[in-house]
Amino acid sequence: MADRTVYNPMRKVAIFGGTHGNELSGVVLVNHWLKHGEEIARPDIDVRPFITNPEAVEKCTRYIDTDLNRVFDPENLRKENKLNLSYEVKRAQYINSVFGPKGSDEAYDVILDLHNTTAHMGATLILENSRDDFTIQLFNYIKKCMAPLTCSVLLNEHPQLKYATTRSIAKHPVGVEVGPQPQSIIRADVLDKMRMVVKYALDFLKDFNEGKEFPPCNLEVYKVLENVAYPRKENGDIAAVIHKNLQDQDWKELNPGEPIFSTLDGKTITYEGECAVHPTFVNEAAYYEKNQAFTITQKILLTAQSVRCINSK
Amino acid sequence: MADRTVYNPMRKVAIFGGTHGNELSGVVLVNHWLKHGEEIARPDIDVRPFITNPEAVEKCTRYIDTDLNRVFDPENLRKENKLNLSYEVKRAQYINSVFGPKGSDEAYDVILDLHNTTAHMGATLILENSRDDFTIQLFNYIKKCMAPLTCSVLLNEHPQLKYATTRSIAKHPVGVEVGPQPQSIIRADVLDKMRMVVKYALDFLKDFNEGKEFPPCNLEVYKVLENVAYPRKENGDIAAVIHKNLQDQDWKELNPGEPIFSTLDGKTITYEGECAVHPTFVNEAAYYEKNQAFTITQKILLTAQSVRCINSK
Repeated sequence: MADRTVYNPMRKVAIFGGTHGNELSGVVLVNHWLKHGEEIARPDIDVRPFITNPEAVEKCTRYIDTDLNRVFDPENLRKENKLNLSYEVKRAQYINSVFGPKGSDEAYDVILDLHNTTAHMGATLILENSRDDFTIQLFNYIKKCMAPLTCSVLLNEHPQLKYATTRSIAKHPVGVEVGPQPQSIIRADVLDKMRMVVKYALDFLKDFNEGKEFPPCNLEVYKVLENVAYPRKENGDIAAVIHKNLQDQDWKELNPGEPIFSTLDGKTITYEGECAVHPTFVNEAAYYEKNQAFTITQKILLTAQSVRCINSK
Repeated sequence: MADRTVYNPMRKVAIFGGTHGNELSGVVLVNHWLKHGEEIARPDIDVRPFITNPEAVEKCTRYIDTDLNRVFDPENLRKENKLNLSYEVKRAQYINSVFGPKGSDEAYDVILDLHNTTAHMGATLILENSRDDFTIQLFNYIKKCMAPLTCSVLLNEHPQLKYATTRSIAKHPVGVEVGPQPQSIIRADVLDKMRMVVKYALDFLKDFNEGKEFPPCNLEVYKVLENVAYPRKENGDIAAVIHKNLQDQDWKELNPGEPIFSTLDGKTITYEGECAVHPTFVNEAAYYEKNQAFTITQKILLTAQSVRCINSK
C-alpha cells in the first residue's frame, strides 16, 4: 500500500445552488457568482456556478415533482420516454450530460453542492466515501481554516440510507450544509459561513493543482447509523415533537434514557438505544415528509494518506 | 365619558389554526384540541378550535391561491360567481358564514388566530383597534401572566398597512404570533409559549364572564409605522440581506445610521430614518414575496378603562 495517493489536477469544478429551491444561501451565492465570478476564480481551474433546479428556485419550493437530490442513480439517469419523466428526473439527466456522465473520466472533478438546513448543524461537510483520500484531505483543510468556527463532517455511506445525490456525478462530491436557517429566507451569518467554506475549498484546489503535497491526516467524522422517525397517531398525524432538550443540540452526545420527544399530552419519550450517539439533522423541515425526526451518528476517525497532484510543475 | 366599559358575556370563542398552512404550532394545537378539548374548555363558553385553511395545511404551504389572512374585506366576502373565486376567497366566505357575519351581532365574540413567524418576536399579540378596551384588558392580562417571559403587543391600525385578517370577523380579534420558528417545523419552546397564551386568554374570559372587574390599565404597544423593502437589482433579485446586527433583534431600538442591510458585495446599508424606531417581523420568510424586509414601529402607551360584564351574576 503506497503512502501517497496521486491524482490528476482538478481542473473542472462546479458549485451547485438551488438543488433544493427554498434553501436560499446557495441560490443567492450562485446567482451572485454567475454575474460576479472574480471571488470564485482560481488560476487554471474552470469553476462553474450553476443553478440545478431553476423551476423549484422560481417557486421557492424544495422541488417540483420529486427530490432532485435523490434521483442521480443509474436507473433514473438512463430512463427514456422523456414525456413521462418527472421534471427533476429530466433535469438530472441534463445535469448529468453537462457535468458527468457519472462514473466516467469526463465527469467534473469536484462538485460543491450548497444546502441549508433548519437544524443547528453549523457549517457541515458531507462525505460520501470514507476511502476518498482526496476529499478527506480537502475537508481536513477546510475544517482547519474554519477554526475557531466549528465545521463538522457527516459521513453517509450507509448501505440503505445513502442516496443518489446531485453532486454524486463528480469524481469528488462535496455536500455543503449550513444551518440553522429557515427555508425561504437568507441569514447573513449562514451566508458568511457558506461563503467561507467555498473560498477555502477553492484555495485548497489551487494549492493542490500547484503541486503542494498534503501530509497524511486524521479526520473526525460523524457516521450515519440510523434515522429516527416521529411517533405518529393512527391517522398519521404527528403525536410528539422534538423534546426541548434535544432541539438545537445537533452533534452533542445523546445517551440512553435521555429525552428525545414530547407528546402533545405532556409525556416524555426517551432514547432507548444501547449506547451514546450523536444526533444530527434534528428537526429538519424537509424531513417531516420523509418521517425523519433526526439522524443518529457515531463519531469515528478517518485517516487519509498524503495526496499530491501527479503532473504539477 | 364613562370610566367603565361594560360588555355582554363572551360566550362564543374560536381558536383558529392553519390560516397559514405551514405555520405548524397552531395547526398541531388545533388538531390536538379537536380531539382532546378538555384543556380549552371553560364553563359557559363555547370554545371552538378550527382549521381555517385545510388545503394549505394538507400541502404544508402558506396558501393555495391567495393569502387567506388578507381577504376578509367586504368586497371579497360579498363576491358572487363561485366558480371564478380563488380557494381562499371561497373559504373566507364559508368561515364568515360560520363565525360571522363580520360586523354583525351574531359574529363570534373573540377569535384567537394562531400564527408563527421566522422572526425573533417571541410571543406576540396583535391588536387591530386601539380603542377596543376589552381586548387591551385581555392583552394586559396575558402579558402579566406570561412574565417573566416577554409578550409584546403589535398594534396595526395603519390606514394603508392594516389588512383584512381572518380573525377580523370577531368582535374582538386576537392575533397570536410566536417565533422564531421556521415554516414547516414544530419547535417545543414555541409550542409551549403559544399554549400558554391561549390558556391565559381563556382564563381571562372565564373570569370576565363570572363578573370580575378589571381596573383601568396602561398597555405598552408597538404601533406599525412602515414596511421596509429589500434593496433589489434591476432584474428583481434581492441585492442585500438583513444585516447581522439587525437579525434576531426584533423590538430592540434601531437608530438612524445603524446598519440594516449587507449587500452581496460587502457594503453596509444604514437606517436613514429621522428618529429611533423598533423593528419587528425582521426577516419573516413569508414577506419576501411581499417585499417586506422588516416593519418599523413606534412604542406608545394605550390606556383602557375598567371593563366588566354587563349581566354577570
